[in-house]
Amino acid sequence: MRRGKVNIDRVFHALGDPTRRAIVERLSGGPISVSQLAKPLAITLAAVVQHLQILETSGLVHTEKVGRTRTCRIETEGLSAAEQWIADRRTEWEHRLDRLAEFLAEEEK
Amino acid sequence: MRRGKVNIDRVFHALGDPTRRAIVERLSGGPISVSQLAKPLAITLAAVVQHLQILETSGLVHTEKVGRTRTCRIETEGLSAAEQWIADRRTEWEHRLDRLAEFLAEEEK
Repeated sequence: MRRGKVNIDRVFHALGDPTRRAIVERLSGGPISVSQLAKPLAITLAAVVQHLQILETSGLVHTEKVGRTRTCRIETEGLSAAEQWIADRRTEWEHRLDRLAEFLAEEEK
Repeated sequence: MRRGKVNIDRVFHALGDPTRRAIVERLSGGPISVSQLAKPLAITLAAVVQHLQILETSGLVHTEKVGRTRTCRIETEGLSAAEQWIADRRTEWEHRLDRLAEFLAEEEK
């Protein structure tokens, strides 16, 4: 999934669920199969697959079937888009605080 | 809202809505009143207030009533928590890629 296709609504929505965040956390350590992924999660395989579909549509996870095994890995596009959106906000408010500090310093003179 | 109280589920869920992100974007530029905030948004004041409640419960926005005016400002706790969670994932996968590169370099020798 290319950057241009990432829908930021979907990324944040997908990350709002603790099971989906647990999947992303697990995959950050490296790619694993769907069944390995499902084992420690206290939910059905069908539920895991459903969460994976949401994560894949959001650009957070990529799954690929090789033979009879479906392997999942992190897709960095989704997390990068979320990270960038937050970083842009931080830049704005830090810039505002800098201007405020400058204004107060000028006032003091 | 103190750091310990931030619920990361709520933060990501809140950011999954385009109107709520537009509110956070606007407030990153500085505090404004609820009515100023509502003006450019094509929704009712009641809907804005509802979005603000969700943002406030998530630790993304702080509102305060002074006299007859309710003013809103960014609350950095929520965004920082989301930023930290994403940064932790990035650290993990970059660390894994480093280990992979080391392994491949060793193999080549």
